[in-house]
Amino acid sequence: MPFPRNLFRPLPDASAGERFDDLLSLPGCRVERIVSQGQASPSGFWYDQDWDEWVLLLAGSAVLRLESQSQPIALAVGDHLLIPAGERHHVEATAPHGPTVWLAVHVPLVKATG
Amino acid sequence: MPFPRNLFRPLPDASAGERFDDLLSLPGCRVERIVSQGQASPSGFWYDQDWDEWVLLLAGSAVLRLESQSQPIALAVGDHLLIPAGERHHVEATAPHGPTVWLAVHVPLVKATG
Repeated sequence: MPFPRNLFRPLPDASAGERFDDLLSLPGCRVERIVSQGQASPSGFWYDQDWDEWVLLLAGSAVLRLESQSQPIALAVGDHLLIPAGERHHVEATAPHGPTVWLAVHVPLVKATG
Repeated sequence: MPFPRNLFRPLPDASAGERFDDLLSLPGCRVERIVSQGQASPSGFWYDQDWDEWVLLLAGSAVLRLESQSQPIALAVGDHLLIPAGERHHVEATAPHGPTVWLAVHVPLVKATG
């Protein structure tokens, strides 16, 4: 348990398809590594999630689109943003050469308790 | 809202003391950036938290100590590990020259609901 794992080594080859790996999975939070290489969401497809997702780009580059925004969002290394639950979004592009590495933190909405 | 912020730019100067900034704060999850430069926990001090903390080193290097482990844990860029709630820990060292950047994901324990 105490020995750390590394986010960048080994890095799966995503040239034939995006790769998704959970780095942490707890009841209140899931941390996922996504490796892309040139992929984009299919035309007309939107992610529509009932949980909050915070994304951080750690390698490569990407273009994200939120349905509520008129302009796409270009992401470089270190860029991060929250995609609130219900905010439809998709990936317009990822860098074609070499890996794009995302960290995604998925947070279920917390029900109010009384 | 849609415009991303960047984790690495600007980076606060931590030479006079560690810098802590929340990047995300939700009821179920808090994501914090920590910037260190040569700091270590005070002698005899242990963090003792009643929540889970997942840490990812993004720049620099560090040595972490978990009380339950006989050996310290050297962390390089990309290394990550979960520090479970109740696992006493401290930082033995961080790189003296240049910033060490941590991402810490703090996750409260979820109470069982019946």
